Amino acid sequence: MDYVTELTEKGRIAKQAARKLAVMSTAVKNKVLMAMASALEENQAVICNANTEDVDRAEKAGMPKPLIDRLLLNQGRIHAMADGLRQIAALPDPIGEVLTGWKRPNGLTMAKERVPLGVIGIIYEARPNVTVDAAGLCLKAGNAVILRGGSEAIHSNTAITAAIADAAHKAGAPAGAIQLVETTDRQAVIAMLKLNQYLDVIIPRGGAGLIRTVVENSTVPVIETGTGVCHTFVDASADPAMAQEIAFNAKVSRPGVCNAMETLLVHQAVAAEFLPAMLARYHAAGVELRGCEQTRQYHPAVKPATAEDWATEFLDLILAVKIVTGLDEALEHIAAYSTRHSEAIVTRDYGNAKRFQQEVDAAAVYVNASTRFTDGFEFGFGAEIGISTQKLHARGPMGLPELTSIKYVINGTGQIR
Amino acid sequence: MDYVTELTEKGRIAKQAARKLAVMSTAVKNKVLMAMASALEENQAVICNANTEDVDRAEKAGMPKPLIDRLLLNQGRIHAMADGLRQIAALPDPIGEVLTGWKRPNGLTMAKERVPLGVIGIIYEARPNVTVDAAGLCLKAGNAVILRGGSEAIHSNTAITAAIADAAHKAGAPAGAIQLVETTDRQAVIAMLKLNQYLDVIIPRGGAGLIRTVVENSTVPVIETGTGVCHTFVDASADPAMAQEIAFNAKVSRPGVCNAMETLLVHQAVAAEFLPAMLARYHAAGVELRGCEQTRQYHPAVKPATAEDWATEFLDLILAVKIVTGLDEALEHIAAYSTRHSEAIVTRDYGNAKRFQQEVDAAAVYVNASTRFTDGFEFGFGAEIGISTQKLHARGPMGLPELTSIKYVINGTGQIR
Repeated sequence: MDYVTELTEKGRIAKQAARKLAVMSTAVKNKVLMAMASALEENQAVICNANTEDVDRAEKAGMPKPLIDRLLLNQGRIHAMADGLRQIAALPDPIGEVLTGWKRPNGLTMAKERVPLGVIGIIYEARPNVTVDAAGLCLKAGNAVILRGGSEAIHSNTAITAAIADAAHKAGAPAGAIQLVETTDRQAVIAMLKLNQYLDVIIPRGGAGLIRTVVENSTVPVIETGTGVCHTFVDASADPAMAQEIAFNAKVSRPGVCNAMETLLVHQAVAAEFLPAMLARYHAAGVELRGCEQTRQYHPAVKPATAEDWATEFLDLILAVKIVTGLDEALEHIAAYSTRHSEAIVTRDYGNAKRFQQEVDAAAVYVNASTRFTDGFEFGFGAEIGISTQKLHARGPMGLPELTSIKYVINGTGQIR
Repeated sequence: MDYVTELTEKGRIAKQAARKLAVMSTAVKNKVLMAMASALEENQAVICNANTEDVDRAEKAGMPKPLIDRLLLNQGRIHAMADGLRQIAALPDPIGEVLTGWKRPNGLTMAKERVPLGVIGIIYEARPNVTVDAAGLCLKAGNAVILRGGSEAIHSNTAITAAIADAAHKAGAPAGAIQLVETTDRQAVIAMLKLNQYLDVIIPRGGAGLIRTVVENSTVPVIETGTGVCHTFVDASADPAMAQEIAFNAKVSRPGVCNAMETLLVHQAVAAEFLPAMLARYHAAGVELRGCEQTRQYHPAVKPATAEDWATEFLDLILAVKIVTGLDEALEHIAAYSTRHSEAIVTRDYGNAKRFQQEVDAAAVYVNASTRFTDGFEFGFGAEIGISTQKLHARGPMGLPELTSIKYVINGTGQIR
């Protein structure tokens, strides 16, 4: 089957499924999620075998070790995916919530109610666990989902989808609620991005290249996720010990994720006091340092930062460091280079804290805490489908409510205008 | 100046202005809106002269009378535009509202606050009053705006923008808060749709052709507005008098707007009783009728409806009429042809009312009322920037809250992860 036929057919079936999912009770949705979780565990051997095919091929192709580790599935990881589905079952159902309601002078009553988005397309890269998370979250929010994972995980994703889609259908979900694009042809992504007739939204999850391809080519509405050039600004009044802990944590605790810090900004008044120990600690932890001219005098390992470094999401143990004249320059730098994901200030000055939070334009703006907290679980939302870095529809961690739309339900007694 | 240079420069200035607008107090914003209102009235002669240029040119070009009427400005209309700005000043400021807040077990406090979207691009057609409405709404919600009106209104829009932008700046708004694209080159629209560096969202207001051009070409996030293929379903249990009033009002009260009904669906059990008088009343009101085979037996003026008629937004005194076997067929027809704007059922059956409201996927779903109520003022929102027919970000009438985004403001005491 060619990919246009495949996508059109999957879109058509998903749209039909979405009508049934929209009116499905919470009890049935939860039963479906629990059945999907059990199916993962019951089909563990089949899924692991399929995964071995992907891993073998990746090793032969010379895929770097950290990426192979992300691709790898084992008993523990399959149980973790199943537990994720059970946690989604335990989350409150967002559908049907009445957000607000009122009565008009003419007697019409109006209620603004949460409804599903409809059909969601998810385009993602290596990790096969996204297949399960995305399917579970979309289903709980009453949406049909069309998944398009990376070609390197195609056998794993096919085995996973077969298991959970079949279990979902047997437990009461309509056929087509969960579908995987089977072709690995890259052109299929472009075709998917034009499927306006069937898709209500596309959410890309992956690197900057994938996000760019989606934003540039999609005629379906997109929610951009993920890119994080995050800053921490150490103000003149910062508690030095707190600043060091926060700045170290934000860079080193997990450098490969989007909420990790990429640039450290330091107020010039405290640079001489703060930076020598800080830079030495980074260096000892294996962080490659790239700094402005002034920064370089505080540690011999600091290489000169280029203009490009300020705009780069390293996703690695690399840090750009800049000394600034004060809050204004920090705000200017952040306005110029931030991807509007997560930004932090460490300060004891009330006015500066307030100005930073008001003036910085980002999904999450922190005072005296690590940027690493921008995450669905850390926010208390439970599982997330991604971190939105755009301002439309959803911003920051996207949980179940972000996978919904609204509808005005209006009741009259014959009103005309 | 070529249009790419013009747009890039306007985008750059708008982005700077947006940072200042985001932190502007409600008092200053309202003062700016009042100054803009006064400026319209003070510059009435200049604006009317400019408008005469547009109208003369349109008449020479043979523009149809109703369109010329939409283009025309006079003293009364300029006062109405000024009053619109004063009404926007009186609306509550959405910015800074804390939507929700909570404390995490680790002591982090989190608040979800309303912030402006940033820079909004509005692309619209004939009516010069959109220039004023859009500028006022964007400003009150703390956004910079780049306006791109129709070439047929370019002199009017230029004179209006000059008056209000100058007054806004003098009253305290940053330079570049309100800008108009001056070139009438159609390619400028395409360039605007790619201005991701500066624009946070584009809202098209106009006919289906404009909306399609924007959706197909924009890499900036879009909020689709307007197209309304709205249905009214007269159920078997409908109160016949109420059904007639609602069905007549929905079609005839203002056929040129998006919330007008385009297709009437009638339950077969009441067709013989309901349709003869209804069709006669439409015919007497000058409505051209296009019906299914069964419908045609109830009035000699009913022409045969084509497949295309079911999918057409006539925006005129034309109505498609179809007899259906019951609620299920009505729901199927609506699912197939609705543009998800406004849909109505007239019924006395509780179960059918509930099913219709739950299963129909549209921005506004009515029981026993005319679809004509889908409107910012009728909903009690005040002025609107358009009616969103998409499910992302905003659905239905878009007032001030729909021109905002959110930000998470997080306060800690040194938390790391």
